[in-house]
This record gives sequence, C-alpha cells and structure tokens, in this order.
Amino acid sequence: MADISEVKALAFDVFGTTVDWCSGIARAAREMLAPKGYSLDWARFAVQWRREYQPAMERVRSGARGYVVMDVLHREMLDAPLKEFGVSGLSEDEKQWLALGWRRLDPWPDVIEGMQRMKRRFILVACSNANIALAVEMAKRGGLPWDLILGAEPVRMYKPRGEVYDSVGQFLGLKPENVAMVACHPWDLDGAKARGLRTLYVRRPDEFGPGVASEKPAPGKYDLMTDSFIELAEKLGV
Amino acid sequence: MADISEVKALAFDVFGTTVDWCSGIARAAREMLAPKGYSLDWARFAVQWRREYQPAMERVRSGARGYVVMDVLHREMLDAPLKEFGVSGLSEDEKQWLALGWRRLDPWPDVIEGMQRMKRRFILVACSNANIALAVEMAKRGGLPWDLILGAEPVRMYKPRGEVYDSVGQFLGLKPENVAMVACHPWDLDGAKARGLRTLYVRRPDEFGPGVASEKPAPGKYDLMTDSFIELAEKLGV
Repeated sequence: MADISEVKALAFDVFGTTVDWCSGIARAAREMLAPKGYSLDWARFAVQWRREYQPAMERVRSGARGYVVMDVLHREMLDAPLKEFGVSGLSEDEKQWLALGWRRLDPWPDVIEGMQRMKRRFILVACSNANIALAVEMAKRGGLPWDLILGAEPVRMYKPRGEVYDSVGQFLGLKPENVAMVACHPWDLDGAKARGLRTLYVRRPDEFGPGVASEKPAPGKYDLMTDSFIELAEKLGV
Repeated sequence: MADISEVKALAFDVFGTTVDWCSGIARAAREMLAPKGYSLDWARFAVQWRREYQPAMERVRSGARGYVVMDVLHREMLDAPLKEFGVSGLSEDEKQWLALGWRRLDPWPDVIEGMQRMKRRFILVACSNANIALAVEMAKRGGLPWDLILGAEPVRMYKPRGEVYDSVGQFLGLKPENVAMVACHPWDLDGAKARGLRTLYVRRPDEFGPGVASEKPAPGKYDLMTDSFIELAEKLGV
C-alpha cells in the first residue's frame, strides 16, 4: 500500500462505482418495453447490454476505429441485447431514448453524502469513460457535486489506457501521487496504479444485480478498500 | 436580439465577469509588497499587469508560439508591472505566488446567488481563458457552482478565437443557439455571436477599479443586457 497523505484530487469511476447502472437500465428498458407487451428479466437485459461495453471500447483502444463518444457506443451496443431478447419493431428514436438511459442512472445511496464530505478537502473529478454531455446530464439529474468532469472525451481514448489517468494530473497541475482513483473495478484501479496514481477501492456487490458474483480483489491490494463512499470519506479523515 | 428561449447552457466568462480581478490582484500585490516597504497604487498595479493580457494571448492566437496555460502567461506578464513600478529583488517563488494570485480572486457579490438560481434550469459552464487548474482552485475557494469547466485549455486556444466558443456546444451535444455566452466584455460576446451563440451582457463598471471607465455597448446590442447575475437570473425567469 502506498502513502495517500499527498492526495489532493479524487478521480472517480462512474458506471458501477458512483451510479447503479443495472437497476437504472433495467428500469429504462421496462419503461419502454413493458407497455409494448414484453416481459423480460430486465436486470439480465441490462447486464447483457453492458457485456458489449469492453469489446466496443476495445475497437477504439486498439485503433480499429477512431474515438467515438460513449453515447454512440451505447446505441450501437443495444442491438445485441435487443436481438438476444427477441425485441423488434423499435423506432430509431425509441432506441436512442433507451441508449440515453445511461445518462439517467441513480447514485448509490451512500454517494451524495460521501462526496459532499470528500469535496471539503479534495478536488472531486469524474474520470469516467462516459462522454461529457452524458456525465453532465447524469450529475445534474442525480445531484453529483463534481468539481471537474474529465475522463475519456478530453483525451479521446478509453480507460484503462494510461493517457486517461495521466490527464487528471496534467489538467490539474498535480503529480500522479497527488491523484487517487476511486473505483469498484480492479481493471480500472490497476490501470491507474500503472500510471502512479493512488488506488481507492469501493466494493459494489450489487453492480450486476443482487446476488450476482463480481471480481473480489485480495485484501491489501489497493491503498484503501471500503464498502461505501461514506466509509471512504471516514478513512480519508473527512 | 435573437430568441433565447432555446438556451440550455450558459457559458460564463470569468475574469471581470464572474470574479473581481482588480481588487483581488491589488490585495495579493499589497500582501506581498507592503511588508517589503513598497507603497504603490495597488489597483493601478493590477490594471497594468492586466494590460499585458491581450498581447500575451495574441502571440498564441497568431501562431507565434504554441499554447501555454494562463498561469504561465500570468507569470510572464508580471515582469512588466514589476519593472514599471520599480519593484525588484523578488525571488522566483514570490513571483509565482503573485502570479497564482489570479487563482485567488473573489466573486462579485451578486454571483453566487445568481449562479445558484441559474443552475436550477441551465448547465453552468466556465468558458474562460483560464486554465483548468486555475478555474478549479478559484471555484473551490470562492464557491462557484460550475457544472462544467471548459474554455481555452481543452481546445488549446484563446478566446475570442471561434473554436473556444464552438467547443461548448460540441462537448455538450448542443447547437450554438442552445448556448449563451455571459460576459462583461464586448470583444468576448462579439466572438461568441460570430459563432452563433446567444449573448448575455453583464455590466461590471468597477472591473478596472471604482470610477475607471470601461467600454459600454449600445443598448440592444446583445440578447440581454443586465447589471448583475441576479438581474440576469430574473430575466431568464429563474
């Protein structure tokens, strides 16, 4: 574990770490499709949609295509779960509305209080693969008190590519050890750690819906390991 | 005057429009130099420093040099007023502290209430020539409730070059007519208008210190013309 006493900015992952995408996307799908007579396992629909996430970004990270914003990837990724669940006949406007459901996700119950406490001492930065328009709409809807929204779009590349983590310190005039990544995903924290950032893990056992197993890192793997943003605030002394 | 009913984001100028640079820089100069025995017209020192602002940016806009952040320009610009006022013997650290005085400026008294009201309906964007680190430190110190910080640095060019104004709509997925520039400087509003943004003028008669004349645009030149952020909020119906 590294020294976190010099941390000045907290760079937060968003999908899964800050907001509950599984229940939010299940809700959006149900709102759109239940009135049309569909009765699906809505949470599974959300998980299957999310399954397209890494492959879609990997085409950008590998150079197979240029950078496109996450709103566009979300729309493209939607075709797979629609086909898998046998949903047909949606207009393009309806598909767009569903894709923008990723802007209408609720924060986990501990997030707002935890962020308000951490905001007193730290610069709170959204460092997500979300594009800026998505992150802004989500923040205003859910009351997320970001000091700054960065992430994939300003550098036109997706995490865990190193330039995304580097950009937080570069834009803020801080060294990597002055920035800590907050995330529930080991792949994200490992990417940040490789660039010299500090790593603060938050468990989100219900990310893929209640009772669905997710990867658990070994105790002590990250600089702090917590169960909520409130516990994180406490461990940071705020 | 153009229709402002479709405005969704307000892009704010910062130096002069949102914060009072003249009194803040006069204070920083006095804090540093009075204990060393200097007794200057502190406000005039601030104004002379600010006089270097457009020429310094013009070297970037013209292509004579690549983009450098405003913190660096502020430091470079400082040498002229120091020489003019006969100040010598400052260490480089002291000059840096003075240059970062542009991060420690107070909002005008109407700003926080006005922004809090406008934030309910609009996306509040800092669209300044300040770099991001400067804007973040100023916002946290002064309580400026930005939804988003953009401006010169993400596009590596200075206002009134068009790409800075364009970038607000591009990052937010909005058309130019969905964005309004809020500024006290005609050159800034004219730059925004040329790119299709709406223009909201706020008078700041004390920008250069009490009683110093500044450029007054003709009535009706901009879409709204107001005396404060509170009057602006009222005219926007929030």
